[in-house]
Amino acid sequence: MKQPIGNRPVVALVMGDPAGISPELTAKLVALDEARAAARIVVIADRRVLDEGARIAAVDVDVDVVPPGDPIASNGERPVLVDLGHLDPATIERGVASREGGRYALANYRHALRLVAAGDADAVCFTPFNKQAMRLADPSYNDEIRFTAAVLGTSGPATEFNILEGLWNARVTSHVPMREVASLLTIDGIVEAIGLTASALHAAGFNPPRIGVAAFNPHAGDGGNFGREEIDIIAPAIEQAKRDGIAVDGPYPADTVFVRARGGQFDAVLTMYHDQGQIAMKLLGFDRGVTLLGGFPFPICTPAHGTAYDIAGRGIANVGATRAALLLAVEIACRTARP
Amino acid sequence: MKQPIGNRPVVALVMGDPAGISPELTAKLVALDEARAAARIVVIADRRVLDEGARIAAVDVDVDVVPPGDPIASNGERPVLVDLGHLDPATIERGVASREGGRYALANYRHALRLVAAGDADAVCFTPFNKQAMRLADPSYNDEIRFTAAVLGTSGPATEFNILEGLWNARVTSHVPMREVASLLTIDGIVEAIGLTASALHAAGFNPPRIGVAAFNPHAGDGGNFGREEIDIIAPAIEQAKRDGIAVDGPYPADTVFVRARGGQFDAVLTMYHDQGQIAMKLLGFDRGVTLLGGFPFPICTPAHGTAYDIAGRGIANVGATRAALLLAVEIACRTARP
Repeated sequence: MKQPIGNRPVVALVMGDPAGISPELTAKLVALDEARAAARIVVIADRRVLDEGARIAAVDVDVDVVPPGDPIASNGERPVLVDLGHLDPATIERGVASREGGRYALANYRHALRLVAAGDADAVCFTPFNKQAMRLADPSYNDEIRFTAAVLGTSGPATEFNILEGLWNARVTSHVPMREVASLLTIDGIVEAIGLTASALHAAGFNPPRIGVAAFNPHAGDGGNFGREEIDIIAPAIEQAKRDGIAVDGPYPADTVFVRARGGQFDAVLTMYHDQGQIAMKLLGFDRGVTLLGGFPFPICTPAHGTAYDIAGRGIANVGATRAALLLAVEIACRTARP
Repeated sequence: MKQPIGNRPVVALVMGDPAGISPELTAKLVALDEARAAARIVVIADRRVLDEGARIAAVDVDVDVVPPGDPIASNGERPVLVDLGHLDPATIERGVASREGGRYALANYRHALRLVAAGDADAVCFTPFNKQAMRLADPSYNDEIRFTAAVLGTSGPATEFNILEGLWNARVTSHVPMREVASLLTIDGIVEAIGLTASALHAAGFNPPRIGVAAFNPHAGDGGNFGREEIDIIAPAIEQAKRDGIAVDGPYPADTVFVRARGGQFDAVLTMYHDQGQIAMKLLGFDRGVTLLGGFPFPICTPAHGTAYDIAGRGIANVGATRAALLLAVEIACRTARP
């Protein structure tokens, strides 16, 4: 991770699901000297749940508490807690997804997004959400990308980047049935995904980013013997992106593109569907990695792992991926600072 | 690898494509004390090409040469070379796929299959083929499985197993366009693939083999939100296989099933399509592994890597995977020895 440049950006740190390790991770992150040095941290949470997390983590969380709506000094020394005062931790059963837990996390996240949209913060970092709890709280909840776009009122292309130790993965399609993937691949869609990927890596300091694109069919279609998407769609999209000045190559057989990337040939791999990238990233140790939502006006980062209900409350959660998520948000915020 | 039991089986060792590393690998394997101790090796090749391989590998290949059709003593001390006398190595350009090279490899392979079918050998091991050369030699050539079935006149289910250090991967579909995979998944097909997998592992000494089945859709379909194949097809097939007494579980999300397998939870992973397994296996180092053709009356093994045209003729090819292929063929032949 490169050193942030310029003044410390203001990062809204969202406490995620209260039944898992998010309270503990939030407290641990706020207590990290490195995190406080890199960012002016504004925690969005309930004070009681943060205190509970600090107790579990056995750390001191020394924050200035402000009520929601109050101005936040951008240059204070200590982290700030915006206390939404909306959840008594005694009402939450540890290790269980609940509507109350989902409501809590959604309220924190919504507040953070609005804070940045209003110009009061530069980036968002959130500790793990529980999708089931989110759906119990809001049956229309689908994923973070759609929720974020709805809160911010944005409609441009957005995507999720999975990042592990300098290797990025983005995908053209994601949470859709596999039988529909082929019909969702278009030249324009792939050109757009390549462009989003190049922009996001550029914002994170890769200059120029080197992107490898995965094929769709086995053996990249074997010259058309096992499918024609490489010939008809993916290769033309790559050619178009190259003409746009992007350092992109492929399509490479999906079973070798990550071997190449691991060897240092690419900074990012663009895959055609969810598991194509996730099979590789999880084997490489992506649970230690970071997820970045790209395509929004500011960086939104989160650790790749989940709420870890099985170890909630024990104080043993590793803050490493959350730390990496904060530092990536800081890095991008510094490089793309609004004037 | 367990020690073979009983007498040494007779293994027909097929020299593959002559333009790559196959001549060198064949010579290196024959020169290995461990290989000669494990099997009575019968090389199927042209003597001149084998001599060239021995020269490149800088090994002595001490074989009894017999013409095709002559009887092979099953208990001789030295390896045997069946000299088909069908290729002058001077006519082959190293590192180039050619019709002559393809014809050579196909003739060797066909001869070996017929040798075992006639009861004169117990197993086949082949050094790498070049698919392009095979197609130049025989435009109807598709893959080893179909070619083998045609030569042997078998019509039952057959499949390819990829094996790396005790972890096996089999797949329900393979060299087909991705857009067709969903329509090729059936309960019967998956039950059959689970059965083939269990039989093959059992023949290799796993008792009972533990099989993990991959889901098809992202997040295993997320309870039907991203596809229903898990609910309608894969889970019922697993239940049926369990009723047949097989130790099988799933469907597991494709991006975690190999993490589980690597951790020791399964001996084999059954995947729904080619890249689902190959992405994982190649990252895990499958180029050091072995491919086994399953569903035939005797074991047919080959190293997982290819012809390595880029290093042909230099004597630096690693014989490790070819050695592992031979030892797996021996292991299975010993355990399934015909009375």
